[in-house]
Order: sequence, then structure tokens, then C-alpha cells
Amino acid sequence: MPLQIYDTATRSLREFVPLEPGRASLYLCGLTVQGPPHLGHVRNWVTFDILRRWLEYNDVCVTLIRNVTDIDDKILAKSAQTGEAWWALAFRNERAMVHAERLLGVLPPTYEPRATGHVPEMTELMQRLIDRGHAYAVDGDVYFDVLSFPEYGALSGQRVDEMQPAGDSAGDQRKRDPRDFALWKSTKPGEPESASWPTPWGRGRPGWHLECSAMATRYLGPVFDIHGGGIDLQFPHHENERAQSLAAGDGFARYWMHNAMLTMAGEKMSKSLGNTLAIGELASRWRPVELRYYLGQAHYRSVLEFSESSLDEAAAAYHRIENFVQRAIEAGGEVDSGPVCSEFAAALDDDLAVSQALAAVHGVVREGNSALADGALEKVRGALAGVRSMTSVLGLWPGDWAERTDTDLSDVVDALVRVALDQRADARARRDYATADAVRDRLSDAGIAVEDTPAGPRWTVRA
Amino acid sequence: MPLQIYDTATRSLREFVPLEPGRASLYLCGLTVQGPPHLGHVRNWVTFDILRRWLEYNDVCVTLIRNVTDIDDKILAKSAQTGEAWWALAFRNERAMVHAERLLGVLPPTYEPRATGHVPEMTELMQRLIDRGHAYAVDGDVYFDVLSFPEYGALSGQRVDEMQPAGDSAGDQRKRDPRDFALWKSTKPGEPESASWPTPWGRGRPGWHLECSAMATRYLGPVFDIHGGGIDLQFPHHENERAQSLAAGDGFARYWMHNAMLTMAGEKMSKSLGNTLAIGELASRWRPVELRYYLGQAHYRSVLEFSESSLDEAAAAYHRIENFVQRAIEAGGEVDSGPVCSEFAAALDDDLAVSQALAAVHGVVREGNSALADGALEKVRGALAGVRSMTSVLGLWPGDWAERTDTDLSDVVDALVRVALDQRADARARRDYATADAVRDRLSDAGIAVEDTPAGPRWTVRA
Repeated sequence: MPLQIYDTATRSLREFVPLEPGRASLYLCGLTVQGPPHLGHVRNWVTFDILRRWLEYNDVCVTLIRNVTDIDDKILAKSAQTGEAWWALAFRNERAMVHAERLLGVLPPTYEPRATGHVPEMTELMQRLIDRGHAYAVDGDVYFDVLSFPEYGALSGQRVDEMQPAGDSAGDQRKRDPRDFALWKSTKPGEPESASWPTPWGRGRPGWHLECSAMATRYLGPVFDIHGGGIDLQFPHHENERAQSLAAGDGFARYWMHNAMLTMAGEKMSKSLGNTLAIGELASRWRPVELRYYLGQAHYRSVLEFSESSLDEAAAAYHRIENFVQRAIEAGGEVDSGPVCSEFAAALDDDLAVSQALAAVHGVVREGNSALADGALEKVRGALAGVRSMTSVLGLWPGDWAERTDTDLSDVVDALVRVALDQRADARARRDYATADAVRDRLSDAGIAVEDTPAGPRWTVRA
Repeated sequence: MPLQIYDTATRSLREFVPLEPGRASLYLCGLTVQGPPHLGHVRNWVTFDILRRWLEYNDVCVTLIRNVTDIDDKILAKSAQTGEAWWALAFRNERAMVHAERLLGVLPPTYEPRATGHVPEMTELMQRLIDRGHAYAVDGDVYFDVLSFPEYGALSGQRVDEMQPAGDSAGDQRKRDPRDFALWKSTKPGEPESASWPTPWGRGRPGWHLECSAMATRYLGPVFDIHGGGIDLQFPHHENERAQSLAAGDGFARYWMHNAMLTMAGEKMSKSLGNTLAIGELASRWRPVELRYYLGQAHYRSVLEFSESSLDEAAAAYHRIENFVQRAIEAGGEVDSGPVCSEFAAALDDDLAVSQALAAVHGVVREGNSALADGALEKVRGALAGVRSMTSVLGLWPGDWAERTDTDLSDVVDALVRVALDQRADARARRDYATADAVRDRLSDAGIAVEDTPAGPRWTVRA
């Protein structure tokens, strides 16, 4: 380090200097749990997981908060359609998210607040905004007064007078200005009572923007280091978060980082477009670590167009790393952690240039393979130690994935045992009983119990 | 069904008749996330998981709420000791709980509310109790007025005048009666501000009892079917929950079910006694399904003394089921779901007599094994179908555990491949090239790629 990151707010590369030396605070906009996560969400997770791991490798202690939006129009609409309680639907998808996160080797956040659990904090924030003249209540709804905040539009680089009316209350004549957005939505006829909470302005539910301001500052304080999210959230979501918090007197995020979209046929992957890829389906075709390699390798600020052939290429590239690691361990024994190479560090310090960082890893792998061919074991161990550190930063160290793989080896074992048993039968047929018995003994040593039954030999793996 | 359950409140077996036909609502007291779960918690989960699965098998739709107590004295004390934020510590243990639950094959609850997320609901409940003359505020603390509620003590079968003062505020002279317990605790000097929430009586945090009343009724309504938990919670926790909710005018739980403790050397397994067994450690010695079998087989109302030899016996008993299932599938092909046998149903209907239910499963397994020996395939299929249904109700169907096993087969594969490669080398040595090539082809068919290197053949499992 010095780590440079691209700050969307200033549209420039800036050196990352945390508010408190040795500590970094990150807030990420998490999933709206109307459905299970798709590969676009995972791209966001992997991006910031690499940032977090790189900071931690550099002895920076990271606090990462990622929220769960567990109440919104879409969740209520789906619940009304299916009859499943909205909170049960949200929780089911939250759990799917937890499992997908683990599957992809994404470190869990330090905390994952649910929007519905933070109504007191939101109420306090609204009160501060009303007291300071930046918000107003109308019939139980509370709106942010956009024109009261001159900086509005700065994050997304827009002029207020060129903006469209705020989406979800565009035609509402009670607003002071069409661009004012909802902080709080009063409960509507037909909505379940469980989807509303008491406030001084009546029962209702939070606007999406309000919840993130309230949760980020609750867990990270009034000023924190980095706010991250997908670029599609820059406006209006992040613009509105920033307006709320600055207008309330908080310093809020010091850096804004946005990852570009994952697309299919040029369209953003999203639930509403219906072009999402389910994690479970992908994980049955590629190993999770290969999905992670694929998502990580493109620059986070570049649009990534989903392609099966690119995924296959990523899998092959990862296999080259694994292959070296396996051969090096076989040749050299213990695995140490060594320093990352300077090209790797320089690449990550340059706004997380992961593809260059991976190029550095592959360079060391090639050197390691040459050393293996030459029988230069010291060099092999050095390369292995470097590969271990670098792949750990990227969340790709093969040793971390060995237990987590979803590959079911039992079919492989079955086929192999049959090979061995046929060899035994062949040996018996040629009256080579020594070999036949040796095969059986070696199966036994491997933990395979063979039982001769009328239907032929049966085997089990001993516990 | 008719299912009889032992209702702790009336100290009698009662037929379970849900409030709403075809639906059952359950509230379970969940983990205080001061640490990861131990085997005692898992006993509770498995007990109610079997109840839930049995209800669902009988076409009863179950809503199961299990809370997370994520703020309390112990969590704050641990946080003060280590410097980790209390909410981060709580979340880390919550995630450990989610993983342990999945490992043990416990179905996730319909919703898992966190105490800290329900302050508005708790505030409303306290206001109702104050309005009805059952609670009072003193200097920001709120107490339940025990003598105002004549039924106090009924759940645990105690007379109020023989009770001890309430534990956490025993010497507090401001209470109307020493037995009054805290609904709300005002924030104390030295406590982090993040551990307090605003109420009309000042900032503070919930008492443990209050949170469960608020969360149970929020998700299940003012009256619901079953409240479950460990017998150690019967007093004061459940007595106090019941007092709060009935005094506030809610009907609350219609049945109370308590599981007995898991003990070690006669002592309850608990964090404070330091005699807990970590799930991860146990799962490295026994397969999770064996742990589940072990925990399920004892009657839930009997004290279970932990014993490694009993666990080994449970593992052996489970292996007999697995063994039959494997052989029956090999012999008979498809697996259907059949009806459970009448002894099995009668056992579970008799207050979840799981050990008798397992005896019924083993009876069918024995019949199935005889049918296998006789080559009576129709009978084998019938037995297999019954075993599938019954073990599914108990959460023990081998097919559900195949993918989830933590057994790492890669060592087994390694040993087996070496057996095959040596056979190939032997065949070559005796100039039997046809056999040598056949071995290689069969390894390839099994998904094993063999690469000849200067150091000898190397193999990999193809993705």
C-alpha cells in the first residue's frame, strides 16, 4: 500500500487513507430479499471481499456492514401473490443468501443489519432532518426536501433542475417539489399490519434510502471510510443516502466505490428483467471456486458480459494454479506463507486490478513449474508460499476450497472400487491369488470394506 | 394423528388440537448468542424439528418462530473483555448457529427474529402493561408487578409467597415487591450507547422475558399453539413470558413443551459451567447424521447423559439402516415413498416417543433384509419405501445426507487410484498391454485423468 481507489463522488483515483490508521470501515448495500441472490449480486460480494482481504493482508482491521433490505414494495407484492407471509419470504431468501455467500468463499460481514430491525434509528434520523428543515411530514408520509440541500446531485454528477420527479411518488401533489423522495411511507389500505411500525407521524414503513443512512451510521459512526455498491445504485439510492446523512449533519462516506454490472446479452442481470442466473444451477456446472475466479478476474469497474466460454477459460486458468499447488505439495511437503510479489501488490493497489494480480500469480506458477521440472525444491517452496499468500488475498487458495467443494466423489469412488475388484477377479482367473489378496488388502487399507454377496462383491467406505 | 403431547402447564398429556385446523404455530426460545451453540442446544432443535416434520407429514402447515437473543448482560460483558463490538460478537455466533443447524439437518425456522430488532413491539407491550396496571416505570427501568397477576407461578407450579426475589434485581429497593422482574433496563454508566434504544421511559435495553412475549405474538398472533424450550427455561423465563402476555390481554401459548437437559457427569451442559461440547469437534469424530440419531433417540423429556459409547452405538444402529437402504437400492432400483408403519405413527403420536419409532424403523429394516436374502424384490421395495418415509420424518433419510457429509473422500480416491495404477504397472510388467490400457480407460471413464510425469503417474479428478 498506498492503495489507490476510484472514488465515484470525485470521479478520480484517490489514495485510500482511513479515518483511523489501521482500521477501515465499509458499508455495502446488500440484497433486497425478494428472491435468492443471482450472479450479479455475487459479483458485488466478490469485489468487496477482495478489497477487504487486501486491506486485512496489509494489517488493516476491517469492519464491514452489509444490510439486508427485508421490507419493500416487491416483497409485499410477492407475498400478496403467494400468501406466504412477507417476513417468511424475506427470511427464506436471506438464508439462501447466507448459503450462497459461504459457497462462494465470501467472508461474512462483521454485521448484517435488517432494515426492519432499525425503525427507532430511522425515526431519530427523520426527526433530525425535520428539525433542521430538510424533511417534512404529510399525512403520515415523510419526504426529503431536495431543494433545501444545495449539494443534491453532486454524487451522481447531475444538476437538480435537469432531474426527473422521484420515481415512487412522482405524481404526488402534496410534495413541495416533484423531486422530493420518500423517507417514510404511511401504511396503505390492504397492506398487512405487520408491515408497519409506529412513528410520531403515524404507522408506516421505511423508504429504501432512509434505512441505509440509519444503519450505516449506527454501526460505523457519523463518518466512515467507504460506501460500496453496484453502479446502478449510484442514483437515486446513494445520492439520496448521501443527501439525508449530510443534511442531518453527519459526514457519512469518505469514499464511494461502485462496481459495474454483470450483463447477459448486453442487459443488466436483474430480477425484473428475468435474465438472472441461479447460483445453485451454476454451481452444479462449475465449481464455486471457478465461479469466483471468473467474477474476480474482470476489473470491477468494467461491465462483465456473462459467457460460458469465459467461465470455462477461467476454470482452466484456475486449474493451472491448482495443478502447480498439488504438484508442489507432493514434491515439497509443507506449505508456508510467503510475501506476495511486488507486481501483485502494485496491481491491487492500483484500484484493485485483479486481472493483473492474477497475471502475477500465473507468473509465479510458471516459475514454480520450471523449478519442479528442474527438481529445484527450494524454488518450488518459495513459489508455493507466494502463490498461497496471493491466492488467499483473492479468496482462491486451493487449500481453503478442498472441504467446501460440492463435487460428490462417491461416484468416482464407486467406479474405482469396481476397477480394483475386476483386477482382483482377473488375478483370480489367472490363478494369481497373491495379487488377488493384495488388491483386497489394499482396498481395506484405503478404508474400503468389501463384502462378497450372492449378487457379487459389495463395498462400503468405513466411517 | 391424534397426537398427544405432554403440556407442562397442565402437567398432563393432552391431544394436540391446533387453533386453526391444518395449521400449527410454534415459538421456540432460541440461542443467546454469547457463544457458538453446543450439543445441548442441538438437542432442543432436533426435538422440535422432529415435531415439526411429524406435523408436516400429517399435512399440518407449520409456522415455526425461533428467536435470537442478541443483547444481554453476558454478551456485553464478553464484548467489554475482548473489545469486539457486542453486535459483531453476537452476529458471529448467530452465523455459527446457522451453520450448525444446517450441519445437523435441522430445517430452518419460518423466521428467526432478533431481539434488538423488536424494540417498537416491546415498547407497545410495556405500554399496554402499564395501562392495565401490571407494570410500572422507576427511573427508566420498567418492572412487572408480580402481585398484580394472581396466576403468577401457575406454569411452573409454584406459590408466589414461596418464591425467591427476582435474580437480576434482587436487592433493588425501588421495586414494589422483591419478586417483580425487569421488563426494561435503563442504560448504565459504562455501557456502550449502541446497546440502548429510546422508549417513553428513557434509553435502555430489553429484559430477556419481554423480548420473547413481543416476538412470539408479533409473528404468531395473540394466541398460538405451542411454546417450546428447554426445561431450564420453565422458570423464571417462561413463567414471566406467560405472565406478561396474559396480563396484557393476549391468550399466548395453548400448549407448553419442554425438553429435558443434556448432561455431562450429571451436570447440565451450559456455557457457564464450561462443560459444553463444540459441534465442530463432535462432527469431526462422528458424522452429523449420527449425532442427530443419537440426540433424537432418547425421549425428549428424559435427561440425556452424554456418552461416547452411546454415540458409537447410535452410529452403529444408524449404519444398519443405511446398509439396508444401500443394498435395497442396488437390488431394486427406484426409491418410492410409502406410508409409515402403524407402530411408528403410534409412537410419535404418543408424545414423540422417538426411540419406539426407531424400533419400528429397525423392524422394517430387518424384514427388508430378510426379503433381500430371499430375493423378494417387491417386499424389498415396500420396506425401502417405508424406511424412506419414516427416516424422513426423523430427519435421518440417508439420501438427504449424502451431499452434506463432511467425510472427505479424497484420501480414499487417492488410495484407490494408486491401486489401479499399480495394477496397470503389473499388467505392463507381464506384457499384458490390453489390461494395462483397459485400466487406464476405466480410470478415465471414472473421471480420473492420469498424467505420466518423471516422478511417476499423477492423477486428478476432472470437474
